[in-house]
Amino acid sequence: MPAEEAAVSVHDRGHQFGDGVFEIVPVYNGRCFALLPHMDNLFESVIKVKIPAVYTIEELIEFHEALIAESGIENGEIYTQITRGTADYGLAFPEMSVPQLTMTIVETDREVLAAKRESGVNIITTEDNRWQLCNVNTLNRLPEVLARQKARESNAFDTLFIRENGKITESTESSFMVIKDEMIWTHPDNNLVHKNITRRLIKERLAPDIDMQVIEKAFDMEFVLKAEEAFLCGPRCEIMPVTKIDRKFIGSGVGKVVPQLQAAFKAFVERECPAK
Amino acid sequence: MPAEEAAVSVHDRGHQFGDGVFEIVPVYNGRCFALLPHMDNLFESVIKVKIPAVYTIEELIEFHEALIAESGIENGEIYTQITRGTADYGLAFPEMSVPQLTMTIVETDREVLAAKRESGVNIITTEDNRWQLCNVNTLNRLPEVLARQKARESNAFDTLFIRENGKITESTESSFMVIKDEMIWTHPDNNLVHKNITRRLIKERLAPDIDMQVIEKAFDMEFVLKAEEAFLCGPRCEIMPVTKIDRKFIGSGVGKVVPQLQAAFKAFVERECPAK
Repeated sequence: MPAEEAAVSVHDRGHQFGDGVFEIVPVYNGRCFALLPHMDNLFESVIKVKIPAVYTIEELIEFHEALIAESGIENGEIYTQITRGTADYGLAFPEMSVPQLTMTIVETDREVLAAKRESGVNIITTEDNRWQLCNVNTLNRLPEVLARQKARESNAFDTLFIRENGKITESTESSFMVIKDEMIWTHPDNNLVHKNITRRLIKERLAPDIDMQVIEKAFDMEFVLKAEEAFLCGPRCEIMPVTKIDRKFIGSGVGKVVPQLQAAFKAFVERECPAK
Repeated sequence: MPAEEAAVSVHDRGHQFGDGVFEIVPVYNGRCFALLPHMDNLFESVIKVKIPAVYTIEELIEFHEALIAESGIENGEIYTQITRGTADYGLAFPEMSVPQLTMTIVETDREVLAAKRESGVNIITTEDNRWQLCNVNTLNRLPEVLARQKARESNAFDTLFIRENGKITESTESSFMVIKDEMIWTHPDNNLVHKNITRRLIKERLAPDIDMQVIEKAFDMEFVLKAEEAFLCGPRCEIMPVTKIDRKFIGSGVGKVVPQLQAAFKAFVERECPAK
């Protein structure tokens, strides 16, 4: 149905408490990108917040395909939300509730970001005051909403979160990586950062493709300012060079390694989601 | 309208990101309890998350009164949610969106809790992994959902949050206080705890009524185990004695000060919300 007509109950626990999880799947050439790993992520989150599973992975795959077929959208994103369902007001899990699944597909214009991917973007930083289970993709995203708004008001592409101890975790919706000493560095894949399929793809496929290794170790801004290159990666921005953070230049522009990763990513997408 | 029929868009930012705030107002004898302070709280939260104000306090008061009048409910609770409204998917604030107000009234049976208020309750503890803006009443309540569920599974009344440094902050929906050395102790009213009208009432009115003072200073479990009495306080539990935490006894049962506070609270409610 048209998104404008889709509604959930005011008693849906998603609306009441953000008591649910989400996943975003990119669509290229009318095909879902890395659908299985994304669904694994979604189920991991579902299990961590103890929402009873009412759909199988096979059904969710079918729903993704149906959304693409019925909408005719070739390039876009599919958002999936699973909440604990509708129940009387009360924090503890309801005795009886049926999880509520909502899925929407939206067309996206990837050309807008393509230009940025060549020139690089500037980003800002903010204190990471989020809860300590960021590895669960929950609907509790207000800290990210506020941080992202801060970026917009600063005319920046995104905002990087920095923990009280000075360590950089990630941005509002992407992983953050830097190139230093011919290695790719990023925050460890723990409870302080989201599960990110693009990050995993870089670590397991794209970095080896270009003979580089990903070091998972927390670092601070001082380290970043000495790095050669920096970039964000995620399902929406793909691989996005970062040339300035809080108005300070990183390396000498877009650099050499990031374009190689972008090319490897593009080749991977073309293999995974060939034009029909 | 009946709550079952009330719905919000799947694109409501409350449903997408928990991008909204809430307030709970108790109703006694068909009258709202401490409505103005509660509305002050709500507006403070609205301002902190930068939701544009579309309703005045006067209108919200009118809506509360209309809900009581139309439902005929004498004793219950009114839940108010204000989200940033419906918009296309994206973390930053939408350029154009009208905040979405939803209000529901529910009848409550206060007798169930009245018995507990005489005997006291047992509670458990859990790590406080929440974000660091707990003083904003947001719809991001999943950490509290999970903690409250842990209480239910342990057959406990509620769960107390303990920060990494060992300091107790509050429970999933109440303030926590102990009596020690003839003083009432509670966590400072800062960004780590919710704004709580019952807490404020105790500090400003009820404690002075019984010649006691509230000390706002963070303390740990060691301190609590040496205390004479402990209790939770909030709009739902009122003043609830705590006799056991993690199976350890606190003081020697319900104690002497808590019943005095309960009597002072009862007298205050009777003055504020007299039977019609």
